[in-house]
Amino acid sequence: MQLLKDRILLDGKVVGTEILMVDSFLNHQIDVELLNEMGKEFKSRFDGEEITKILTIEASGIAIAIIAAQYFKVPVVFAKKHVGTNMDKNAYEAKVFSFTKNTLYKIRVSKKYISPTDKVLIIDDFLANGMALIGLSKIVVQAGAKVVGAGIVIEKSFQKGRELAESQGIRVESLARIEKMEDGKVIFKD
Amino acid sequence: MQLLKDRILLDGKVVGTEILMVDSFLNHQIDVELLNEMGKEFKSRFDGEEITKILTIEASGIAIAIIAAQYFKVPVVFAKKHVGTNMDKNAYEAKVFSFTKNTLYKIRVSKKYISPTDKVLIIDDFLANGMALIGLSKIVVQAGAKVVGAGIVIEKSFQKGRELAESQGIRVESLARIEKMEDGKVIFKD
Repeated sequence: MQLLKDRILLDGKVVGTEILMVDSFLNHQIDVELLNEMGKEFKSRFDGEEITKILTIEASGIAIAIIAAQYFKVPVVFAKKHVGTNMDKNAYEAKVFSFTKNTLYKIRVSKKYISPTDKVLIIDDFLANGMALIGLSKIVVQAGAKVVGAGIVIEKSFQKGRELAESQGIRVESLARIEKMEDGKVIFKD
Repeated sequence: MQLLKDRILLDGKVVGTEILMVDSFLNHQIDVELLNEMGKEFKSRFDGEEITKILTIEASGIAIAIIAAQYFKVPVVFAKKHVGTNMDKNAYEAKVFSFTKNTLYKIRVSKKYISPTDKVLIIDDFLANGMALIGLSKIVVQAGAKVVGAGIVIEKSFQKGRELAESQGIRVESLARIEKMEDGKVIFKD
């Protein structure tokens, strides 16, 4: 998606060879107009697929999932990483390893909000090692529902997330695919 | 806002006298159509006010803030509770006490995303004791910017959040104000 690639080139900050900071428009300050264009693009890529629910993970996946949901006209469910006293204890759970934070954490979705008849589109802001995506997919499978695919804003194609997801039969649609980052510059895959 | 009150009566679950669970449509599964109606209502309540930015807090404030931002046509910034390695260290900070979790935590907003000329609308899903709202307001003040007001989805009017915010000169607009909860029922203030 050219609009997003242009924005990454303009406002993204590359740190070393693995970190791309997009906090000025995607995951701290959020450009809602740009998100709307991305939401339309996801709708176009998954056009014709039956989708009944969008699943994402707190916190930075919520914004794009919510905007995309307007085009799919379905509810959003977000998996919780941090469980408050108000969280339903009757939940699907998966373990996710975060390479960024070097910790293992649990994600949870209340059993009430995914049913066996659901056709679920997973949406997230980044795909790197694929740990969050695989965790979300496990939760959908636990519910007996179907993963229709994954809509990703930025894919770090030099990490193994897409390969891992595709090996499990998950269709991955990424709006920007990064081949590599070097000397402070982003080089896209296509 | 009648549509929201009706939905709370239909789908909200009262636990004891203080907890209202709205995870079926507001803060775990999210009804995006309802959020759009709430976004329009916030725009109507703050009509005529100059607003340049919407500020919220992760995770459950993000969805309504993003939808509301579409009507105000401004960017959203969300304060982070959980700081990853990718978070800008040059940030405004405030301490917030959570009565729900009985813990003190820090919230942070990168200094890049609120400037002294900003007119900030704070949006959040709940107002109870007002700790999160006051913390967000402190961050706006640290940036030298102006708090235009607070748009709240559900206000627990039996707790002191509104009083505290108003004592600091913050205009509070809540879409549903709860007078009390008893015997599993919600009684609204107006």
